[in-house]
Amino acid sequence: MDLDDLDTPSLVIDLDTLERNIGEMAAVAREAGVRLRPHTKTHKSPEIARMQVDAGATGITVAKLGEAEVMADAGLDDLLIAFPLVGERKLGRLRELLERAQVRLSLDDVEVAEGVGRVGKELGRDVPVLVEVDTGLHRMGREAGDPSARLALDIAGVPGVEVVGLLTHAGHAYRAGDPGELRTIATREAMDVLDTAERCEHEGLPIREISVGSTPTAGVAAAVDGVTEIRPGTYVFNDVQQMRLGIATEETCAATVLATVVARPTAERFLIDGGTKSFSSDGGDGPPFPGRGVVVGRPDLVLDFMSEEHGVGHLVGDAELRIGERLQVIPLHVCSTVNLFDAAFGVRDRVVEREIAIAARGKVQ
Amino acid sequence: MDLDDLDTPSLVIDLDTLERNIGEMAAVAREAGVRLRPHTKTHKSPEIARMQVDAGATGITVAKLGEAEVMADAGLDDLLIAFPLVGERKLGRLRELLERAQVRLSLDDVEVAEGVGRVGKELGRDVPVLVEVDTGLHRMGREAGDPSARLALDIAGVPGVEVVGLLTHAGHAYRAGDPGELRTIATREAMDVLDTAERCEHEGLPIREISVGSTPTAGVAAAVDGVTEIRPGTYVFNDVQQMRLGIATEETCAATVLATVVARPTAERFLIDGGTKSFSSDGGDGPPFPGRGVVVGRPDLVLDFMSEEHGVGHLVGDAELRIGERLQVIPLHVCSTVNLFDAAFGVRDRVVEREIAIAARGKVQ
Repeated sequence: MDLDDLDTPSLVIDLDTLERNIGEMAAVAREAGVRLRPHTKTHKSPEIARMQVDAGATGITVAKLGEAEVMADAGLDDLLIAFPLVGERKLGRLRELLERAQVRLSLDDVEVAEGVGRVGKELGRDVPVLVEVDTGLHRMGREAGDPSARLALDIAGVPGVEVVGLLTHAGHAYRAGDPGELRTIATREAMDVLDTAERCEHEGLPIREISVGSTPTAGVAAAVDGVTEIRPGTYVFNDVQQMRLGIATEETCAATVLATVVARPTAERFLIDGGTKSFSSDGGDGPPFPGRGVVVGRPDLVLDFMSEEHGVGHLVGDAELRIGERLQVIPLHVCSTVNLFDAAFGVRDRVVEREIAIAARGKVQ
Repeated sequence: MDLDDLDTPSLVIDLDTLERNIGEMAAVAREAGVRLRPHTKTHKSPEIARMQVDAGATGITVAKLGEAEVMADAGLDDLLIAFPLVGERKLGRLRELLERAQVRLSLDDVEVAEGVGRVGKELGRDVPVLVEVDTGLHRMGREAGDPSARLALDIAGVPGVEVVGLLTHAGHAYRAGDPGELRTIATREAMDVLDTAERCEHEGLPIREISVGSTPTAGVAAAVDGVTEIRPGTYVFNDVQQMRLGIATEETCAATVLATVVARPTAERFLIDGGTKSFSSDGGDGPPFPGRGVVVGRPDLVLDFMSEEHGVGHLVGDAELRIGERLQVIPLHVCSTVNLFDAAFGVRDRVVEREIAIAARGKVQ
């Protein structure tokens, strides 16, 4: 089947680009001497997770227990659930999962650790946990340094869990104004966690794992001495958000939404058959990438706004565009875009090589 | 099963409120003497569509051909696809659908009508179409008045289609600053289409259907003499967007996301286990409903931002909140929220009465 045979809108993955992206991040980790545990929330696909592991990832990260279950079903057996598990239903499922996969958890509270610890006691072995440290995002975690070290020591005292490391997510890197600021955030991310680890070790708690690094910060953070693991996610596909940060280019973006021009109501306006229910409303726009997505090879087309199923744009200068033409659009935020599709189409040189199931989509619990 | 037995995050529908909302809009249409063809993009559920038809809707509206197929599979047989169908794949599917359901289409271009007309000629009967008119949203359609009348006359000349009416969507009503402006937009929406219809009829093209009205404008538009059909969608559930417009209150919002408090990293901050992958990033916030959703019965809790799986908020004043507590959050934009779940739970008096499949979710083609 050819790309032209796909109905629209479809999520299309360029396999050459995907494979190159996977290989390059594996090389970054290998050369820095750190482990790579990619965050699979970007693709939610056991097939792509397997490609990452085959390229050298030592395990994977997931955002939700339901995603972990899907990945374990597919034979991925070294999982970090980077989300606190709270409540008896989740703890029951965690217990079952621990019987068939290696699972570690991140959390930031003694009470959450106590729940997990009960599961560990039932199983007769400690559940490995990473204590989440706030390095500036102000989401999960106590402040880096003494507050987080004290928390780690308290959690280490909870029966049934073993503190194996510290973890952070410097999501505020996405707000960096320039490459210099991005580098500062990435370095501080690693240094803050290492400082916290030193305080833990000073109090007698050994910290084996220092887990940091998202797609924009992973390269810098991996190179900081003492870091043991990076967890980038978006790099497999990249998106306009990464282009804006200078991390990606149109050529390194692997995922696009294939859409059809369905209306030309005025000389300037065009509509495609995909809106926020194919792209999500995530992500900001503005120069140098104006619009709600980048139309591949067509800088003369700008997507001005989206409603649920309509993408509404305008033609720049002498641009021409007919109803029925098909466009490939790089989304602003690929993770939320992929999450709207049940499957993607893996394409090489315009030939559809295979369908890729987004099997963990919708596993929000 | 009790509400407390549901794992989180879950999409919860209060059945009493849903039934009341469905009944009230049916009464609005009945009393105005217009037909109700609710837009099912809000719920994507054949079960809820059936409730709407049982309450008096004469048919339903869908946004996509794939949604129409799901609804037809469930026995809903009077469908308006309010989206232009372009391309041979879609036209082939349309032909199949026309053999098992009454289907009308909206469109705004002669070229699109010609494709649909080929299907009509193959079937040996005209496909009924509504010509979309731009009444201020500047999405689909030519300007109301002469430009749209000329288009309707041109489309009426295409073999294989029959122009049965005119249609508009005044989505710009969502930007109305106050009830007066909303009323003006709703009235203009109807009057502009009626004016266009008059010009068509003056040129010898009878216009039987005047189809207008979204949730915020349906009541006003239905009362305008000459309107024949309203197509509100969001009213089944309502959301913060409708509360902001003065159309809904916390008590008339039927859909909430049930979430668990999973972290309390600081005295002021809390996190729930749902973010943009459970709520979407749609919708603006600000007074009088600050935050990324309204926590039912808890004005002392404000959701400040969401990442993909985390909802991050703060406590106001003397508020107290423990890890493990469960909250029900009214989404800013319910249509995009529902679209993230495979199923909802229908609840009455805190008892889970049934699971409701969001069967048309993901049918983006």
